[in-house]
Order: sequence, then structure tokens, then C-alpha cells
Amino acid sequence: MGENDEREIIEHHDDEEMEKMRTPRNHSQSFLESVASSEKDGYSSTQSSHRLLAYSDALISIIATVMILPVAHTKFQDNEELKQSIQALLTTKVAVYLMTFLIVTVAWAAHIRLFQVIERIDDTLALLNLACMMLITFLPYTFSLMATFPNNTLGVLLFCACVMVIGLIQALIVLYGFSRPFLLNDQIQMSENQAYYKRRILEVIMRVPIMCLFASVFSAIFIQVSYIILAIVIFLPYIAQCLKWIRSKAIGGQVEDSPDSVPFYTYHPSEPLSKERVEAFSDGVYAIVATLLILDICEDNVPDPSVVKKEFDNNLVAALQEYGPEYLAYFGSFTTIGLLWFVHHSLFLHVTKATRLMGLFNTFSLAFVGGLPLAYQLTHEFPRGSRNELEAVQISCVIIFFAGLFQLAMWVTALFTERETLHPYVRYGGREHAFMLAKLSLYPCVALGTFVFTCVLSRFSTSIFHMMEIGVPFAFLVLRLLVRVALVLLRWLFCPARNDLDSVPVEEEDSQLPIHDIVT
Amino acid sequence: MGENDEREIIEHHDDEEMEKMRTPRNHSQSFLESVASSEKDGYSSTQSSHRLLAYSDALISIIATVMILPVAHTKFQDNEELKQSIQALLTTKVAVYLMTFLIVTVAWAAHIRLFQVIERIDDTLALLNLACMMLITFLPYTFSLMATFPNNTLGVLLFCACVMVIGLIQALIVLYGFSRPFLLNDQIQMSENQAYYKRRILEVIMRVPIMCLFASVFSAIFIQVSYIILAIVIFLPYIAQCLKWIRSKAIGGQVEDSPDSVPFYTYHPSEPLSKERVEAFSDGVYAIVATLLILDICEDNVPDPSVVKKEFDNNLVAALQEYGPEYLAYFGSFTTIGLLWFVHHSLFLHVTKATRLMGLFNTFSLAFVGGLPLAYQLTHEFPRGSRNELEAVQISCVIIFFAGLFQLAMWVTALFTERETLHPYVRYGGREHAFMLAKLSLYPCVALGTFVFTCVLSRFSTSIFHMMEIGVPFAFLVLRLLVRVALVLLRWLFCPARNDLDSVPVEEEDSQLPIHDIVT
Repeated sequence: MGENDEREIIEHHDDEEMEKMRTPRNHSQSFLESVASSEKDGYSSTQSSHRLLAYSDALISIIATVMILPVAHTKFQDNEELKQSIQALLTTKVAVYLMTFLIVTVAWAAHIRLFQVIERIDDTLALLNLACMMLITFLPYTFSLMATFPNNTLGVLLFCACVMVIGLIQALIVLYGFSRPFLLNDQIQMSENQAYYKRRILEVIMRVPIMCLFASVFSAIFIQVSYIILAIVIFLPYIAQCLKWIRSKAIGGQVEDSPDSVPFYTYHPSEPLSKERVEAFSDGVYAIVATLLILDICEDNVPDPSVVKKEFDNNLVAALQEYGPEYLAYFGSFTTIGLLWFVHHSLFLHVTKATRLMGLFNTFSLAFVGGLPLAYQLTHEFPRGSRNELEAVQISCVIIFFAGLFQLAMWVTALFTERETLHPYVRYGGREHAFMLAKLSLYPCVALGTFVFTCVLSRFSTSIFHMMEIGVPFAFLVLRLLVRVALVLLRWLFCPARNDLDSVPVEEEDSQLPIHDIVT
Repeated sequence: MGENDEREIIEHHDDEEMEKMRTPRNHSQSFLESVASSEKDGYSSTQSSHRLLAYSDALISIIATVMILPVAHTKFQDNEELKQSIQALLTTKVAVYLMTFLIVTVAWAAHIRLFQVIERIDDTLALLNLACMMLITFLPYTFSLMATFPNNTLGVLLFCACVMVIGLIQALIVLYGFSRPFLLNDQIQMSENQAYYKRRILEVIMRVPIMCLFASVFSAIFIQVSYIILAIVIFLPYIAQCLKWIRSKAIGGQVEDSPDSVPFYTYHPSEPLSKERVEAFSDGVYAIVATLLILDICEDNVPDPSVVKKEFDNNLVAALQEYGPEYLAYFGSFTTIGLLWFVHHSLFLHVTKATRLMGLFNTFSLAFVGGLPLAYQLTHEFPRGSRNELEAVQISCVIIFFAGLFQLAMWVTALFTERETLHPYVRYGGREHAFMLAKLSLYPCVALGTFVFTCVLSRFSTSIFHMMEIGVPFAFLVLRLLVRVALVLLRWLFCPARNDLDSVPVEEEDSQLPIHDIVT
């Protein structure tokens, strides 16, 4: 994309050079003249949209994870059993976090789709996009109002108002884009029926604001109806796709789109999703989540000088020991999130095209990653050997397990359409296939193992968890070696006679499936 | 860079295809075979470093701005005069914020330099880099310990320990990189005296940890000395460059580097700084700063249902009105930061090469941007018409003024070496020169104007500030028009006789300077 940007401006440069050649007095081109020439050409300010999108991704990823903060800052009483406080948490704050994450991700997906149609921007579009971003960043707040006051219409009304204005701004962006076709995607720019595309895209975009208008009208009469409408708005595309897919499987008939249809705005599970933007969004989430705990530590964990003087006899080390568990939690969660990012990075290095379904699994994985700092903080908050501590450790394991599992699911999804979505190296039978599998399954396996161990040896749960924390980074360092050893063992077990690999006959394909199953 | 990544993996792809051609049984390539082939080639896992750097930039930008949170969360008593609390703030928290920002930016600059030498990564380097990041994210905390307990050695020791470990990891990365030359920058890879480069780079990298070792030794004896050593560590390159420059100006002799010298690690003001990374870092800072207030709002500004029932008679709107100023502060700061980002984006669109000096001005600009949310929150916190309110508005103006001014300084710096650093469009006399000048000077001018107005009409300070907030986004929308009108006026004033522009004679260069001065 940076490349693209480069080219864009180099074109300008060439224009300029050409112009200079034409005018003989190219040395003395003055300030006033420059203005005259800028008046001559109307669209000199067309820009690559790369950086605008990167900035939008950064904003949206921060906003998606922001609702974890109220969860993380919930204080637990030590005397209270964790189960009760967990229940209170689960019902409101965690639900708000997950729903916010989902809704913001939906808004992000809509933003991706919009800027797959409009590929170049100018100043007006950049400013419109910033206005759109401002409203998206306000969504989590309206959502937490809805969750705290479910029977008050204000939350629903605010949410609907935001969504409607966002929809209007997006429609404005589309209209502006189609009025200046050089801003559009090349495919649409070349196409003959731009008017059709324009109508179709506007239809899809305006669907959501109109539904929200209904929801806000109903909220005055019967508020439950408006919640149902809002749920439909968000999940309709997925439900419709599911139904379509089930019908096509049941009847067997192929439901083909019309040949004219746009490659965007289809909601098909294999609809392409910009790989760069999925990466940028994930990077944003991983970065903000990794630093969530240090934000708290920097703000709260510097003891007051007077307290240190009075209570700890000016011994700063003793005063800081009180915060020991929090530093441990920070380093633990940073390491885990860093390594999960590393796995994600390795996977996307070999992904050639991201699809909607992969995007969905990525969202789920990231939603669990967002919960990690909380889980780690819990792990170190309770007295040793209490039931709370065991539960906190187990919750951490469950979160790590699902975060890793959905990463694995992304790869498995990609494998179904491997010709389009994966590089040959990590395809089934590819050179890095086994290694990628090991990388992706390391965290789920370790989390599952730790969980089982803590169930059996519940007294040593924290020690087991710490061992896991320390062991995993080293496991990643020597993973390539481990994979080789494991595969030599497997080979020795399943085809002991054939040591010479180059003469492996074709029937090895039979022995290949069980191995694959075992390792998975 | 994404392009680069693409190419990297397409190379892999081609290898694979070639290999398949050579082996006749390319359909039945199995799982075990894939392992065998992965054993054959040692460095199949070389990766483009693009995403690793983007993730590092995101982490570092969050960490750089984190120390603004303790400043922003300082509570002011209404009865107290702002001046006193501001003084208390300035001495510790703001100083800590600015110093942290500077130190983290220095670490970031070292990271850029390192990965300009090592251009490709593999799994080991990625994991080493993550370890390095973890320590960098811990630096702000050690710094705030130092500030709170200036006479305790613990802060200094922790800081030195972090810096030493970071230095060792960086040295390890360099050694690892030079032991696998295919990971290095092409220029060094091709060069004959790699050993010289290696020694030189290691020397520069190890300089800082060794100084820190001295500092930590001295901290046991006489703590002031270790502070001085730390200050020298950070500012030495700048001071040395300044002295060199002054000497070369005074004596007139040209101090030439040896022809062998590396283009990196020179600390020369025109040393190139990766433009992509400057953009990514700035995006990160702008994004986290823009959302700082919504983080607080989401967490703190949802009223308790029981309170609403008791105190506000179940009237949610009335309960929320209490928070009104905070929403205003959020939208105000988001808009201002968004527009400053927009100006930054416009500028970097036309920058072809970023230099160290530009990077320094960028850092200063970003450091002021980080203070904006605080300033905005202050603006809306005090009762109308109080002296505190006037001062809060004026502080906001000063911050906006400097944030904008340093952006302008970046462009002016770039203009000095415009052939290398700028596209012809925004060079002196270029087509977009006037427009860029207007964009960059809009915020400083408006902030200065608002400041002067509030001094004169101090009773209406908040109203003036709100007018400014509302007016500026529209000013940006119609800026192109305004610039044209202004230039037509200027042209009419200074050369009324020459309406026909194509026949402007060469002596117009005389009239060009005053105009330029006036507009600046």
C-alpha cells in the first residue's frame, strides 16, 4: 500500500516535470504562479487511502477493547467467594464487553467494505471519515447505557441516532465517491453500469439506518421490540447467509448470484476482506490489550512518599513488594499476548487472502484476548490455595484455550479453500504445514493441559500456572526442533520400514490421515 | 512494505512450484514428505519485518503517552486557585510525562536504527524483539518511581537494569543478524567489510548499557552523579552533533565522515528515518490520545441505577446532564486531535524522506498533542467566569499552538533540503505550496487568535473557545477556497497591473518574498 502511495505521488511528480519542460522559465516559478496552476487542475489532491485506513483501524481497535476496562477494574472482596462476584460480572459487564466488541467489529467490517469500493481519497473524504470515526468511538458508551438502564429509552435512542448519522455519512461518502469516479475501485471505475452499483451499495448501506429509525420509533411504544430489531440488524446478514447455505445444501441447487453483482457487499463467507486491515486491526487490539495492565500500574502502583516513610520505614523495596503480584500479572499477560500475536503474525504471513469467515474467527479470538489481562490480574489477586485462586487460574486457562482455538479455526477455515487463501508452504502437505500446526495448537494444548492438571492437583494450581508461563516462551523458541523430533517419532511409529523418504510410495496417503488426526 | 512482504512470499511460492516441477509425484505430496523438505532447507522461514515493526510502533506509541493518564486524572478542588495546583502538577507529573515521552522516543529511534540494518526477520528475532518491547513498556514505571523517590536508588537501578537488558538484547539481535547475512540490509549484505559494520554498530549499541552500568554503580555512592550520567546518555548524540555543527560553521572546515562509514548510526540531523515508521508511531499516538477521554467516560460516566432512582426521580437525561461538560470535552478534543492528525497526514503525503531533525520536531508536536485531552477536560471543569476557567482555556490554546507550530517546523525543516525530502508539489513555488502553508498554519493562527481574544475579552473566554472549536472543522473544509480568495487578494494588492498571469515577468521574484513573509 505504501508502494501505491509512492506511485500516486510519483505520478504527480512526473506531471510537474512535464509542465516545467513546457514552460521555459522553470527556475523562477513563483509563489503566485503556483497558485494559478493549482487552480487549473481540480483533482490534484487525490491521495492513497492507506494511512487514513491505518488510523481508522487503530481507533476502532482501541474502542473495541475499551469496555474491558470496567470489567478489569471491578474490585473483588477477598472474603466473598469468586463464584458470586463472577456471576454478577458475567451478567452485565462481560456481556457488555463482548457485545460492544461484536458491534464495533461490525462497524469496522462495514468500514472495510466501504473503502474497498472507494480506493482513493481527498481532503473532503478524509474529514467525513474522521466525523464517522468520532461517532463510532461513541458507540460503546451508548451500549453501556443500554446495559445499565435496559428499560430506559435513552440508550436505544442515542445508539440509533449514532448509527443513523454514521449511515448518512457513509451514504454521503458513497455519493461523493461516485460523483468523482477517479476515487473509486478500478473495477467499478471501468464498469459500464456504475449507476447500478451505486444504487445497490446505497441500498445496503441505508438498510441499517432505516432499521434503526424503526427501532427508535418502537422504543417509545414497546422497548423490547426495538432491542429485537437491533439484534436483527446486526445478525441478519449472518442468518441470511446461514439459511441460504443450508437451503443450498438441502435442495442441492446452486444459488448463483447474478453475473452483474458487485464483488463487495455480498455477505458471502468467502467475500474477500482486506488482509492489511485485518492485520492492522489485530495489531491494534493486541497492542492495547498488552499494555492495559501497565496503564494501571503506572497510574496506581507508585506508593505515596509519606506512606513509605511512615509504614515501611523509608524502605521502598518493602513497599513495592505489596504490588509484586501485579508486576507478575503484567509480565505474564504481556508474554502471553505477545506470543499469541506472534502466532497470529506467523499465520497471516502465509495467508494470501482473508475471507469474511476467517475475519469472524479472528474477531472471536481477539475478543478472548481482550479478557486475558483481567484473567491474569485475577490469578494473582487471591490468597494462595483458596478456591478463588483455583477458579481464577482455570478461567485464565479457558480464555487462553479459546483465544488459541479460534486462531487454529482460522487456519482450518483457510485450508478448506487453500488454493485461494493460503501460500503453498502451509497448505496440506506443504513444507511448513506441520510447523504451522504445532505453532497454532501449542497454546490450546498447553492451556488444556494446565486446566486438567489444576483439576487433579488443585493445591498446586498457581505453581502449575507459573510453570506454564515460564515454559511456553522457551517452547516457542525450540518449537521447530520439537516438531522435527515429533515427526521423526511419528514416522518411526507409523512407517518403520521406510527410512528412505524419497522412495515413499503413493499409498502413504493412507497413513497420512491418522497422523494428521492424531496431531490435531 | 506490504508489497515487499508479498514479494517475499511469492518467492517462496516460486521455489515451491519449481520443486514440484522437478518431482513427478506432485499431487500426492504428503505430510511426512513436507517435513523432510522443511528439514532440507534451513532458512525457509525468513520473513518481511513490516508487521513486526508496525506492532512495535503501536506498543511504543501507547507507552509514550501513558504517563499523561496520572496528569489527566489529577482532581482539582474548585475552591483552590488553578495556579497553585498547576504548579504542583508542573513540577512532577507533567515533567514525568514529558521526560517519559522523550526517553521512550529515544528508545524508539534506536529501534528504528536497528531494524534499518536488519531488514528481514525470522521467528527467533521476532521473539527477541517481543522481549525487548516488554522491557521498553516497563520504562515509564521506573521513571515515575525515580520522580516520586528522587533520593532512593531503586528507581535508578531498575531503569538502568532495563536499559542494560534492552541493550544486550539489541546486541544479540545484531550478532544473530550478522551471523545470518541474508537478514541484513542489502547495502551491508553486498558490502565487503561487514566485520567493520558489525563492530561499529555494536560499539554504538553497547555505549548506552555501559554508561548505565556506571550510573548504577555511582547510584550507590552519590545518586546525583548517576542522574547526570543518565542525562548525558540521552542527550549526548544531540549535544555532540550541535557542537560539531557549530564548529564546522565557526571554523568553516568541512568535517567529512570517512567514506566507509555506515549510513545508519550517524546521529546526523539529516540521517534518514523510516517514513513508514514515523507515520505508524504518530498514528498510534494520535489514536490513543484521541480516545483517552472516551476510555474514562465509558468507565466512570455511567450513573448508578440506584442513584438515578433516588436523586433524579428515574430521569436519566437529568442524571446525564451532570456529565455534559465531559461529553463536550470528548468531542472537542477528538475533533482537534483528528484535525491535527489530518494536517500531519497531508504533510507526510508530500514528504519523500523523513530526517532525524524532522523526527525530533514530530516528537515535540506529539508530546503537546498528548496534553490536549487534559487541557480540554480542564476547560470544562471550572465554573463559568472564574479565573481558573480563563487559565484553562489559555492553556488549551498554548498547547494547540505549540502542537501546530512544531508541525509547521517539520515542513520548514524539510524545505531547507527540499530536493531530497519533499515532493515538488509542496516545495517553494510548488503547486500546493500555498495550500500546505495554510493547512499547517491554520491551527497555530487560530490558537494565537483565541488566546489574544481571551486576554482582551476575558469574560467571554469559554464562548470564544467554543466558537473556535465549531469553526475550525468548517475552516478546513473550505480552506482550499479561502486560500484562493486570499491569494487573489494578495495578487491584487501587490501586482494590480498584471492580471494576466502567463506573462508575469521574472522580476516578480522580488514581490514574492514579502508576500511569503506576510502569509507566514
